[in-house]
Amino acid sequence: MNEKKGIILTGDRPTGPLHLGHYVGSLRQRVALQHQYKQFIIVADIQALTDNADHPEKIHNNMIEVVLDYLAVGIDPKVTTIFIQSLVPELAELTIYYMNLVSVARLERNPTVKEEIAQRGFQKSLPTGFLCYPISQAADITAFGADTVPVGDDQLPMLEQAREIARTFNRMYNCNVLVEPQALLSDVSRLMGTDGKAKMSKSAGNAIALKDSEEVIRQKVKKMYTDPGHLRVEDSGKVEGNPVFAYLDAFDPDKENLQKMKEHYQRGGLGDGTIKQRLLEVLLAELGPIRERRKQFAKDPTYVMQILKEGTEAARVVAAQTLLEVRRTMKIDYFG
Amino acid sequence: MNEKKGIILTGDRPTGPLHLGHYVGSLRQRVALQHQYKQFIIVADIQALTDNADHPEKIHNNMIEVVLDYLAVGIDPKVTTIFIQSLVPELAELTIYYMNLVSVARLERNPTVKEEIAQRGFQKSLPTGFLCYPISQAADITAFGADTVPVGDDQLPMLEQAREIARTFNRMYNCNVLVEPQALLSDVSRLMGTDGKAKMSKSAGNAIALKDSEEVIRQKVKKMYTDPGHLRVEDSGKVEGNPVFAYLDAFDPDKENLQKMKEHYQRGGLGDGTIKQRLLEVLLAELGPIRERRKQFAKDPTYVMQILKEGTEAARVVAAQTLLEVRRTMKIDYFG
Repeated sequence: MNEKKGIILTGDRPTGPLHLGHYVGSLRQRVALQHQYKQFIIVADIQALTDNADHPEKIHNNMIEVVLDYLAVGIDPKVTTIFIQSLVPELAELTIYYMNLVSVARLERNPTVKEEIAQRGFQKSLPTGFLCYPISQAADITAFGADTVPVGDDQLPMLEQAREIARTFNRMYNCNVLVEPQALLSDVSRLMGTDGKAKMSKSAGNAIALKDSEEVIRQKVKKMYTDPGHLRVEDSGKVEGNPVFAYLDAFDPDKENLQKMKEHYQRGGLGDGTIKQRLLEVLLAELGPIRERRKQFAKDPTYVMQILKEGTEAARVVAAQTLLEVRRTMKIDYFG
Repeated sequence: MNEKKGIILTGDRPTGPLHLGHYVGSLRQRVALQHQYKQFIIVADIQALTDNADHPEKIHNNMIEVVLDYLAVGIDPKVTTIFIQSLVPELAELTIYYMNLVSVARLERNPTVKEEIAQRGFQKSLPTGFLCYPISQAADITAFGADTVPVGDDQLPMLEQAREIARTFNRMYNCNVLVEPQALLSDVSRLMGTDGKAKMSKSAGNAIALKDSEEVIRQKVKKMYTDPGHLRVEDSGKVEGNPVFAYLDAFDPDKENLQKMKEHYQRGGLGDGTIKQRLLEVLLAELGPIRERRKQFAKDPTYVMQILKEGTEAARVVAAQTLLEVRRTMKIDYFG
């Protein structure tokens, strides 16, 4: 562990099965980084509850789905610690302490939260937990001494909040207990939806899930948005904003052939059916082994829960140590 | 325990030694009720931190002072469970879950919080923890299934918030897990300060602490505000708003003689020195045994900390059971 580059904290909200957007944006990176860094993956059920308090069963049901996705893509529980947020109570305690270091006005200014409030129609009645979730995230990050947090640029304000809290704590209590995390910006931009919209998401119905069957993938690729101006095969077509090419960029290993296809599509003479056929081949090749591994793990839910249990226990040990130091620094360790 | 009338949750913020105001407003009542009710007393260090985050050592130092005051007035740790808020992490967890059930606007409307924000000059930069402390209080109350909460009328909005949270939880998850607490209004009105101001408080410098020495009490009584219009002994003096009579009302066991003194004071001929001398006798008689017991307990801080430790352990058992039911009801008990 000593030779590792640093400590990563990353994770997902268990609100649905993971999809190609997660795979490109973070899962592949986690698989690649797990041997270089000490990596903690949080399944953030408490954060998911901040806008799903009335559907907690959704969180419960997706807990195992998300972990199956992790294992299927190649996250190795021997080197990566996967844990359940709500079963590390030290995170709740740290959140409570950090809440005294952040003003309400500061939370309300957070651009990411502002945008998410608008998306969810929370303008009229904003759950307190939702407003405060950047503080909860700061607890998640600092509890594990994470110095590295992989984020998309839309999440940078969240990380800045965590950095501020670490700085404020260290300054206020004249200590060096909390680590100020750095962003590790994803070098692959966000994957667009099958409908060409900017973001792939389950709720928008424009996602290809990692667990989708061959038949479902076939149907989804068939219905994909391309260039609406590309009416006849001989017409010139657009590559930018065309999700078929965006996905080929992300997954096609034959970059030379892809370049040729793009040029052919742009000058005319290459049909949507042909490019979709190539995408289907590429996706099936990429997702086939993942789906197979997922099926194997899904046969043994006890084993999967055991991974979560052991990961959670390991995470608690680390978080408890940080909490102890935080309390000691604040001089509220009454029994020494 | 089964024959008891109900469960009480009450407590104090450990920000200073307790004074006559606490004694009249709540401590005497706690001593009287501890055999009729199952009583939990929370030393609310987390709540104290919401506006003392930059002075946590103050909280630490006052923890034992407050418990010494409890023991001195006759709170019996054999029947009353005294515990430290921050060492019952289940309270932090419940707070986090309840935060999803309360809107930010609802918190901002709380009249008690509004007033306290103004008192503390927090209008410009309100710590998130301070805004949220009614949610934290709801966690404290419901964690112990408290059906009875002794409050002054200024604290009724806080209790209403706890009642709302219990109702919302039970309705949202279609259960009966949380108990809606009822107010037990104190029948003694709030004790004014030695300066005649409405509220006795350490920070206003108008308090007589339970641990004050005879000499300090003597000095404080001597300097007490009376009726500024009562210049000469033969003048008529006012009883209303006169803290000397307010304290005599609260402590003088000889009500007949007190009535005569009041009449004498009102018609003229009774000097401030005389009524203060009577108050001094009464206070020394009341506080003498308390101060003696306090000295005895103060000699053995290990014993006092042991009481806190055992109380905290007992409190955790109860709070953990509530948390378990809350998580089970929300279906986030992943490992059964």
